[in-house]
Amino acid sequence: MNPQACTDCTRPSVDQERILLGHGAGGQLMAELLNDVITPHLAAPVEDAAVVPFGAARAVLSTDGFVVTPRFFPGGDIGSLAVHGTVNDLAMRGAAPVALCLAYVIEEGLPTAELRAVTASVAAAARAVGVPVVTGDTKVVNRGCADGLFVTTTGLGRLHPAARVSATRGRRGDVVLLSGPIGAHGTAILTAREGLGLASDVASDSRPLHRLVAAMLDAGGEDVHALRDPTRGGLAAALNELAAAGRIGIECDEPAVPVPAAVASACDLLGLDPFEVANEGCLVALVHPRAAQRVLAAMRARPEGADATVIGEATAGPPGRVTARTLVGSHRIVDLPLGEQLPRIC
Amino acid sequence: MNPQACTDCTRPSVDQERILLGHGAGGQLMAELLNDVITPHLAAPVEDAAVVPFGAARAVLSTDGFVVTPRFFPGGDIGSLAVHGTVNDLAMRGAAPVALCLAYVIEEGLPTAELRAVTASVAAAARAVGVPVVTGDTKVVNRGCADGLFVTTTGLGRLHPAARVSATRGRRGDVVLLSGPIGAHGTAILTAREGLGLASDVASDSRPLHRLVAAMLDAGGEDVHALRDPTRGGLAAALNELAAAGRIGIECDEPAVPVPAAVASACDLLGLDPFEVANEGCLVALVHPRAAQRVLAAMRARPEGADATVIGEATAGPPGRVTARTLVGSHRIVDLPLGEQLPRIC
Repeated sequence: MNPQACTDCTRPSVDQERILLGHGAGGQLMAELLNDVITPHLAAPVEDAAVVPFGAARAVLSTDGFVVTPRFFPGGDIGSLAVHGTVNDLAMRGAAPVALCLAYVIEEGLPTAELRAVTASVAAAARAVGVPVVTGDTKVVNRGCADGLFVTTTGLGRLHPAARVSATRGRRGDVVLLSGPIGAHGTAILTAREGLGLASDVASDSRPLHRLVAAMLDAGGEDVHALRDPTRGGLAAALNELAAAGRIGIECDEPAVPVPAAVASACDLLGLDPFEVANEGCLVALVHPRAAQRVLAAMRARPEGADATVIGEATAGPPGRVTARTLVGSHRIVDLPLGEQLPRIC
Repeated sequence: MNPQACTDCTRPSVDQERILLGHGAGGQLMAELLNDVITPHLAAPVEDAAVVPFGAARAVLSTDGFVVTPRFFPGGDIGSLAVHGTVNDLAMRGAAPVALCLAYVIEEGLPTAELRAVTASVAAAARAVGVPVVTGDTKVVNRGCADGLFVTTTGLGRLHPAARVSATRGRRGDVVLLSGPIGAHGTAILTAREGLGLASDVASDSRPLHRLVAAMLDAGGEDVHALRDPTRGGLAAALNELAAAGRIGIECDEPAVPVPAAVASACDLLGLDPFEVANEGCLVALVHPRAAQRVLAAMRARPEGADATVIGEATAGPPGRVTARTLVGSHRIVDLPLGEQLPRIC
């Protein structure tokens, strides 16, 4: 059984394009892949979670595959990350998690103890969130046909009664709030990754954000227009996606964006832009100005939002354009990252 | 980035056991893995789909990873199989599909045309079922870190109003119904698989069963006690799981089980037991005797149940014991298969 096994099956095309690592990195290449391959067949949603009418209620669904390497890193592991990632995708639509599903693809030869440790971590993270893992699936593939363990989590959520959150609801004049410092997750993964020889004490910020979002919605209701967690592609991708979906401009005050010193120095060393490094425990919000201070106060009252701050505002445009005011007062364009800066970050 | 990348991370144990291919095959080894690794941390459900209270309604959730090789085979491909597999897992709890989620793990280098073909197949299968794909996720891993493409589908379903279906509801005296011939899917995959040199015209039976189940529940209501689709581990595994969950015996009339001639000869050639070969388009039902003929008639009125037949009955036991009356009138024990007969069948 080798990876080329399907060359003599009924492969449907002679098209010579191939998938690149950057197609999975949350940037421009990924957007192109979705537009080129997915949209012609399936509706490609603007959001990571979908709202589905279910009886008299509305259900929220989100699914996410996790392929992070290494699987254990400072601040978490693939199991806790999978729980937090899916809980946060639900939260970004204004939903609280009701149930999680868990699917493993395991490479033959994975130490059983490691599977046990990841499963214990899934269970502990789900317990801390307060969501049951209700069903699962386990597949095993031949040695060499996967990289140890891939985890796919899917969440069912219930909308907060006051939630009218959508990436498309950003409006000119909205205040841009950030819940905390950026860059920790990507930097922690780099530190833990083989061969890079970095010594740093940065731990991933991986954590659930559903309680923070509930507090924001309690405080701001419909005035909380849009939420995004800056994961793959980092803050740059999140702001660009919000600007594009809302057909607004976003002007961000670069010195106002909190970047921990250890993250900044690791990024300097590696030539990375902290705006493009993945996060797993913070969020960006577009909030109507009349509610911004109230929402900000509600965020700061929670541990995961203690460092929440205003980082900019939504402008008339040009639609989709994100700019940053630098320390010296000039403006730079913050582009959607092209492809992978750090592959397999989640 | 090599598959051993995580040896210098914080691997949590020196335990020397490792996952075997057979741990994913739906048999005894898999049951042991679930008991040993999953149950200590998460509830290991008896069913492939979970019923979750959701507002005033009950939601049904099921998740399934697909790693079939080859990805294109007579009668289907990994995309249609992923849709049918999840729709059928929902159906086995008596639920109709409301929404699907789709997660890809793609190996760098996969031809884009192949991803496009699989996505088109997902879309076509979902359209035929009548269920929207509402959200998805795409991850790309380095070349050599996956085998082309893995697909995880998760379904949200709504319970049929009359459904009280559970693997645990099998009762002594229940009639065992089978919706159609067995063995086609596994045989088709074998035929398509590189190097086995079989020439046969068997196509997979992959298809959605939710309409068949709705017709059965319309006809039999609560008298439809338990449903199971005999996928990994085949009919042998399905009957053993129903017998164990219901604490009943099952006596099966072997000559009554329809095995197509092409399947029988392929199995003969390869030393396989058709009872253990995977199916993707039939189901086993335990039905109260007073409703059995009515349910059988409803099944036969639908194309996917045209060959439905009685294959046995539930007995007092010993609990969990499955026996088959052979052509010559003797009895043999039908065991839960140990491990992989055909790895990566779905």
